[in-house]
Amino acid sequence: MNFDIIRSGRAILHVTDLKKSKAFYEALGFIESEADDENIFFRGLEEHNHHSLWLRKKPEAAVEAISYKVTSEKDLDELEKFFLSQGNDAKWLEKGTQRALGRALRVQDISGLPLEFYAEMETVDRLLQRYDLYKGAKVQRIDHFNCMVPNVEQAYDFYINQLGFMCSEYTVGEEDKIWAAWLHRKPSVHDVAFMNGQGPRLHHIGFWLKDPMSLIDGCDVLAAMGYGPNIERGPGRHGLSNAFFLYLRDPDGHRIELYNGDYLTSDPDFKPIKWDLDDPMRQTFWGHEAPDSWFEEASRVLDVQTERKLPLHEPKLKKRKPQFVL
Amino acid sequence: MNFDIIRSGRAILHVTDLKKSKAFYEALGFIESEADDENIFFRGLEEHNHHSLWLRKKPEAAVEAISYKVTSEKDLDELEKFFLSQGNDAKWLEKGTQRALGRALRVQDISGLPLEFYAEMETVDRLLQRYDLYKGAKVQRIDHFNCMVPNVEQAYDFYINQLGFMCSEYTVGEEDKIWAAWLHRKPSVHDVAFMNGQGPRLHHIGFWLKDPMSLIDGCDVLAAMGYGPNIERGPGRHGLSNAFFLYLRDPDGHRIELYNGDYLTSDPDFKPIKWDLDDPMRQTFWGHEAPDSWFEEASRVLDVQTERKLPLHEPKLKKRKPQFVL
Amino acid sequence: MNFDIIRSGRAILHVTDLKKSKAFYEALGFIESEADDENIFFRGLEEHNHHSLWLRKKPEAAVEAISYKVTSEKDLDELEKFFLSQGNDAKWLEKGTQRALGRALRVQDISGLPLEFYAEMETVDRLLQRYDLYKGAKVQRIDHFNCMVPNVEQAYDFYINQLGFMCSEYTVGEEDKIWAAWLHRKPSVHDVAFMNGQGPRLHHIGFWLKDPMSLIDGCDVLAAMGYGPNIERGPGRHGLSNAFFLYLRDPDGHRIELYNGDYLTSDPDFKPIKWDLDDPMRQTFWGHEAPDSWFEEASRVLDVQTERKLPLHEPKLKKRKPQFVL
Amino acid sequence: MNFDIIRSGRAILHVTDLKKSKAFYEALGFIESEADDENIFFRGLEEHNHHSLWLRKKPEAAVEAISYKVTSEKDLDELEKFFLSQGNDAKWLEKGTQRALGRALRVQDISGLPLEFYAEMETVDRLLQRYDLYKGAKVQRIDHFNCMVPNVEQAYDFYINQLGFMCSEYTVGEEDKIWAAWLHRKPSVHDVAFMNGQGPRLHHIGFWLKDPMSLIDGCDVLAAMGYGPNIERGPGRHGLSNAFFLYLRDPDGHRIELYNGDYLTSDPDFKPIKWDLDDPMRQTFWGHEAPDSWFEEASRVLDVQTERKLPLHEPKLKKRKPQFVL
Repeated sequence: MNFDIIRSGRAILHVTDLKKSKAFYEALGFIESEADDENIFFRGLEEHNHHSLWLRKKPEAAVEAISYKVTSEKDLDELEKFFLSQGNDAKWLEKGTQRALGRALRVQDISGLPLEFYAEMETVDRLLQRYDLYKGAKVQRIDHFNCMVPNVEQAYDFYINQLGFMCSEYTVGEEDKIWAAWLHRKPSVHDVAFMNGQGPRLHHIGFWLKDPMSLIDGCDVLAAMGYGPNIERGPGRHGLSNAFFLYLRDPDGHRIELYNGDYLTSDPDFKPIKWDLDDPMRQTFWGHEAPDSWFEEASRVLDVQTERKLPLHEPKLKKRKPQFVL
Repeated sequence: MNFDIIRSGRAILHVTDLKKSKAFYEALGFIESEADDENIFFRGLEEHNHHSLWLRKKPEAAVEAISYKVTSEKDLDELEKFFLSQGNDAKWLEKGTQRALGRALRVQDISGLPLEFYAEMETVDRLLQRYDLYKGAKVQRIDHFNCMVPNVEQAYDFYINQLGFMCSEYTVGEEDKIWAAWLHRKPSVHDVAFMNGQGPRLHHIGFWLKDPMSLIDGCDVLAAMGYGPNIERGPGRHGLSNAFFLYLRDPDGHRIELYNGDYLTSDPDFKPIKWDLDDPMRQTFWGHEAPDSWFEEASRVLDVQTERKLPLHEPKLKKRKPQFVL
Repeated sequence: MNFDIIRSGRAILHVTDLKKSKAFYEALGFIESEADDENIFFRGLEEHNHHSLWLRKKPEAAVEAISYKVTSEKDLDELEKFFLSQGNDAKWLEKGTQRALGRALRVQDISGLPLEFYAEMETVDRLLQRYDLYKGAKVQRIDHFNCMVPNVEQAYDFYINQLGFMCSEYTVGEEDKIWAAWLHRKPSVHDVAFMNGQGPRLHHIGFWLKDPMSLIDGCDVLAAMGYGPNIERGPGRHGLSNAFFLYLRDPDGHRIELYNGDYLTSDPDFKPIKWDLDDPMRQTFWGHEAPDSWFEEASRVLDVQTERKLPLHEPKLKKRKPQFVL
Repeated sequence: MNFDIIRSGRAILHVTDLKKSKAFYEALGFIESEADDENIFFRGLEEHNHHSLWLRKKPEAAVEAISYKVTSEKDLDELEKFFLSQGNDAKWLEKGTQRALGRALRVQDISGLPLEFYAEMETVDRLLQRYDLYKGAKVQRIDHFNCMVPNVEQAYDFYINQLGFMCSEYTVGEEDKIWAAWLHRKPSVHDVAFMNGQGPRLHHIGFWLKDPMSLIDGCDVLAAMGYGPNIERGPGRHGLSNAFFLYLRDPDGHRIELYNGDYLTSDPDFKPIKWDLDDPMRQTFWGHEAPDSWFEEASRVLDVQTERKLPLHEPKLKKRKPQFVL
């Protein structure tokens, strides 16, 4: 590859009620970098870039793009070349078009997911040691995207072979086919994961917490503020990834994961960990079942050219949900 | 009252496979004080008395007794007088009859629960600061019993007015009738709780942990050892009692609660906290539903005279399980 | 005894700058129940009584009284009788004299410490589950007083034999004399402790935290707000009491302990734990030395009649500070 | 650069009593991968490589080498070329010479520190989810080396410009000269840090913990096992790096840091954080002074050719220890 993707960078979500969204994300502990009547830009406490979550007020909830940070402007040009060579359309948003962002390239990936790449984002004060501003779950930084796609093997091959991602863990279903995969650029468990399902859809955005107690504190604060019904699943530990997790639904139903308990995946000799879909310890190490909504519901994504919702395709592998015999 | 009950003291459980039980309770972090082919005596890390959990090998799982510690031998005599005056039978087990215990009085309470009272138990080394022996969830001490009884109001009146318990929190159901109540002698949330249901049965025994992370550690260790399926509910926070909780089923199905997050109830001007049965934050502050098994299953108790299982009675209040509209 | 002391209840501190004090105690996570130009009344998150810390603006820092809650008004009368029988003066502050408090009895104890007893304090909303209001170290409730007195054995005998306290742990110095003692009414490690030293002085007021992470969070928040220099000692674990502790000095130098990690002391057969003064694990289980200031500095106390500072007496036992050979 | 260093990989320490060392490191929670009469190979719970700490029984305590993992064998050749071009000697240890390791290149770096580079190490079972094996502080993986060198600016320039490290944070002393610097290859705060002092010496090896409570648990377990005197400093939080830290001395005086609380440093636009040497929040965010031993004592290192101790040089910057006016 002639380009270098650093990490998952930001997500752009369409939300229908900015006031409700603001209240929810601030309860979680996000820091508002900037806001106006149409937009809120949030970041985590350790982030030195302007935002990792951009909420745009729109009539309908959707995912406008999930964005990756690259090393330099040159990488953007190389990525354009690559995607054009694949027969994809590419769309440039010049510097100044988007708040706080340099030049950005948008494309639909092989599964139809709206990707954005950028090298430059305004820097802001990092608040890592402003413990007096820590609230809720004390969200530290964006960690990963999790996407539902109809053909996980296709997505896997594309990200590994074409975009230079590495695999940390994966799940196989019927006939040993890849049912889900966790892929990374930064040496953590993942920057993006793909899960077999009706798609393309964004299943959740994962944000990193500093420790397990921040997740417990987050539950307590959310519940005290009336957000108990927004807790969809957890707290629990994933067998896969070893994450101590909590899944929340924001006021528009977008799913947020609070996440702690990763490991270092820097080494070329690290062997991806294989799980069987029906291993009860895979999704929840402690053995709980996830609710149906977690397997069925996800956020619709937009066409980067038309800004219309992409049609959904049925998953290639039939089994959409693990079966437990606990 | 002419007697002084200090606190919940120990439980005597019949189990069918001592080896399996031993492995399970040691994984949780209990300390074995003594054992032979027919018995295991367990205690928590801070306990200076010989045991708080006595497992007896028997053909069938059951609860032989739940026991309270009283201040002195005189209290036992006064308790006998009281129960005889109520028309109850009482049974003495003289000192030396039971391992490590002084004279004990056994009676069936107003709901049919097999109670035991004792003033004296052998003391042993307290292991509070032997952190090198901490394992699993690092169980510190027995905290309370939770019982399913057909008539909670009757049990409530008996314990408050006749035995000198105080109420910290309670739940009302239809027509503002008491559906569940948390009662204490030591100034914590409870030594015993009663819940509307088919009974008399023991719903669970609660053990105190030193902090929330011990509960998370407990989950991880249990899962790593293959006890994931024994985790029935949690971790979560109860609205009622504010406890950070985990419910486990031992190899015979006896239910154990790991518990942290109490508060001090020493003051006569503390007003019992009233909850509505259908308040979704009551049973789980974070809004999760408990599994059906948690509402339906419990351990059968024995007649203190015949050592046979007591027949079950249907609950007086029809509603056996809260209804959520989350 | 004909009276029943429940627990340590509140402290009345004179401070010289209410604004500075307010900022400091709010950073720690105290809840302000009420305030005016001359007073602030603080309570912890689980407290249902109006306050446990009353700060009064005065020209000079001092301790006006340390107060114990008793069961009923009758206990106050009995306490008066007792103290008068000992040749002590007693002073009544009638209901309405002090904000939120019923009738109060003030006396100088055998060491000269200004004690107050009361049965009634206004109740307020308990904020235990208002996690959205949790800040800093999330102080839960008052736990104990620690006092420096010249004659610890005398104080010990008086509290045990005359006031009905029980001993949980104690330290012996030269010739096996009691150098320090931890005494309780509520079944925890202590409501009051006495330490050999120039006195009578109040060494610190201990407040209970819900878990160890709250103490770490407290350090981070305090440091981020510029209160790093107010941290005098810790975090660490006391061998004695097993407490995970932090000692802070408020803007007037009054010492506050944040405290977690107690154990239950309800049983008459609990044997007080004896420590040698020079056991390096006694004061800090992990082996750190305390700074000299911790052994030398403490708050002066007032005469309940004259409201003047009590003169200091040199300690009976010469050794004021443990010697370590680590 | 034509080579790619991945991360700090292992340290080789000479110790005088393997039995004592084994007991100490196992108390900390290290996993023994292999051992014989002359060697112990330890790894952390998440490590999939054979070891990160090799202890060799020798008559005198010393540091044989600190080792970095590189991407491929080719990188080793390029590193040799580079060091030879600088006039350094290089020493090859062929595959099979060292237990579990491929071909290794050893050189003295610009400060005289004995470096080793390798691409291949045997893989072993990762025990990340074997929570039943977690003990003590539950050490997860090696994180960094901290070295005392006489000329920090020289070391800084060499690692940044010649070896491709990036700087996350640094400290300036007199005349704005670099007094200490934290440098990384993996996107964390550091793989290596340099501190002004008599050198070359290894100040400590840092190991990563999964969360802050593991550090507290580690203190408790170590103290309970009699290792209280081995705790030299902490627990506390570094202002610099934001680490929650504990410093221990092993039976030979080698210093180990237990470490949690890093942040992601993946971005080219991350601006290194500058601290003033005398900022009291720099070394300890909470304001505690480190003991003198922490600034003065460190482990001597060996010549990679002669295996003799390297002579010490006085530091270029006079000030060896920060001055606080707290």
